[in-house]
Amino acid sequence: MIEGHGDDSYRYQDIRLNFSSNIYSHADLDGLQAYLHDKMEVLSSYPEPEATTLAAELAQWHHIDPDCVMVTSGATEAIYLVAHAYNGQHTQVLQPTFREYADACVMNGCKVSAIYQLPTQCEKFRIDNRVDLLWICNPNNPTGNILDKSYLQNLIEANPQVTFIIDQSYEDFVMKPLFSASEALQYDNLLLLHSLTKRYCVPGIRLGYITAAPHLLRHLRTHKMPWSVNALAIEAGHYLLEHGIGGVPPISDYLQEAQRLRDSLIATGAVDVWETSTHFMLAQLRMGKASALKDWLAMQHGILIRDASNFDGLDNRFFRVAAQLPAENDCLVAAINEWMLT
Amino acid sequence: MIEGHGDDSYRYQDIRLNFSSNIYSHADLDGLQAYLHDKMEVLSSYPEPEATTLAAELAQWHHIDPDCVMVTSGATEAIYLVAHAYNGQHTQVLQPTFREYADACVMNGCKVSAIYQLPTQCEKFRIDNRVDLLWICNPNNPTGNILDKSYLQNLIEANPQVTFIIDQSYEDFVMKPLFSASEALQYDNLLLLHSLTKRYCVPGIRLGYITAAPHLLRHLRTHKMPWSVNALAIEAGHYLLEHGIGGVPPISDYLQEAQRLRDSLIATGAVDVWETSTHFMLAQLRMGKASALKDWLAMQHGILIRDASNFDGLDNRFFRVAAQLPAENDCLVAAINEWMLT
Repeated sequence: MIEGHGDDSYRYQDIRLNFSSNIYSHADLDGLQAYLHDKMEVLSSYPEPEATTLAAELAQWHHIDPDCVMVTSGATEAIYLVAHAYNGQHTQVLQPTFREYADACVMNGCKVSAIYQLPTQCEKFRIDNRVDLLWICNPNNPTGNILDKSYLQNLIEANPQVTFIIDQSYEDFVMKPLFSASEALQYDNLLLLHSLTKRYCVPGIRLGYITAAPHLLRHLRTHKMPWSVNALAIEAGHYLLEHGIGGVPPISDYLQEAQRLRDSLIATGAVDVWETSTHFMLAQLRMGKASALKDWLAMQHGILIRDASNFDGLDNRFFRVAAQLPAENDCLVAAINEWMLT
Repeated sequence: MIEGHGDDSYRYQDIRLNFSSNIYSHADLDGLQAYLHDKMEVLSSYPEPEATTLAAELAQWHHIDPDCVMVTSGATEAIYLVAHAYNGQHTQVLQPTFREYADACVMNGCKVSAIYQLPTQCEKFRIDNRVDLLWICNPNNPTGNILDKSYLQNLIEANPQVTFIIDQSYEDFVMKPLFSASEALQYDNLLLLHSLTKRYCVPGIRLGYITAAPHLLRHLRTHKMPWSVNALAIEAGHYLLEHGIGGVPPISDYLQEAQRLRDSLIATGAVDVWETSTHFMLAQLRMGKASALKDWLAMQHGILIRDASNFDGLDNRFFRVAAQLPAENDCLVAAINEWMLT
């Protein structure tokens, strides 16, 4: 899907508060910017065809072997690469979730079906035996829901015939336990997707990676184009893994603020808000359309939210926001209160 | 193909002269670097999903409509995108040429056949009627050969059932006439690939584009992932189209120097060099292997050449070089003379 995502501020004039992507807007990127400035000579040479030096650093970061890591142009390339490598297979997607899983699979001739609930212990965790591939976003975009790690372990072990793709793009914005890259490697049928874009609040740079058993990555590699990650993105990765970024609040404080935003949104009386285990949340208008609220907030207040009506299973009353600074979150709540009076 | 391309200086220590990619090494990128430094705030936001502002600028540059331009992550994404959009079809590739056309087509389930000669006027320009897609690199990598525009016009008109992909990545390094983007639009069955990487000597940034009739690009768009071009690459495109780069000699001087390099290489007695119409050339050792020469030049002189033995139809005696500064070209020739005495 080319259009219809969040962070579409290019469609509006003068957006000053951006709640529409799941990125914290106040990270301090000065160190990264200074580093890239000093590395501009990389413009003059081809990047590594497969960003192997960065893959090696990520492997070290995760305490796993380099042949268990593949760097991609954002998690998006990872999604399209997996869909291509498993083209034509029967794919299931746990919905509602990020549209790209289903879109990439359809584009690659997969039979795609939606499920809204995974099998329970009573069902012996057994997935429909026609399914080859199952996509799970954890924590899930747009709901903020997290599946228990122990449940996922049971699910994966009970279905060795299924290849699981678990997108952990938001893994750094949760308190609950998730698969570590090394834990996930014990499974022959699990690909974990990760996002440096999300971890380091740099969506402009496009940098993600996959961790998985080497035989799974070897299969993906036969479907990968060279040079998908440009030289500045590779350099950014080198810097970020060593130095990180500043300005992001401790995760417990940030999630507490997200809960405060959720409570405040509910208190407006305008919306129901789903429970979330991360920094973003899914809200459902009691009256009116999310697209109308989005346009009104953008035009009247320079506030951008994510119209979530194009997620599978959701309707035109849904929108998604990610918590920002407390004062900004208060602005959003105040603006929604004002909108109710219009 | 992930490995096996030129500009693999990351494999060697201390490369000081790089003839291995078809990029002029002495472009002045100071202006671009300063501009990117001032635009680092783009790291904090998602890029446009499809780089449409840059596509519009390219359209203006070529005096064509914006819906006739699609920006890609280097010409490489364009190649893989076309192969994906025409998956499963019968593809022909005019060989020897850039490996990615055939690789991308095989990866996408196309039946791929090689041809070494195109049909002549006596053959009424008729292509094998089983062929759906024909790939031509013009000027051709690695030979430097150019096909006449009038011949290509006849070929395209005589075969309306074939979709032609003409990769003009090196279009800015020739004196002979090629298709302009607007001329090419008169054909319903022609996709032109272009490379900003090559035009502006910025291989690190990954920036290419396709120009074609809107219905062809609409078809490609249904196979495109969002955000394939990162925000710094889009900004680089904005700058380059307006300001260009410095330091590149006038094309007539540069091609004259390339001819001087060719003559000097032939004069060593070590190689035959194919005639070229551009700044790079294909050389064939009379004795020995190109891989051995490559390693020797890298280790002894810090000189990098492109072992061309992995191009379809070529053998282990072939290598490719692109002309650089006259004194550097002289160094290459002197080193090859020295190698002959080893």
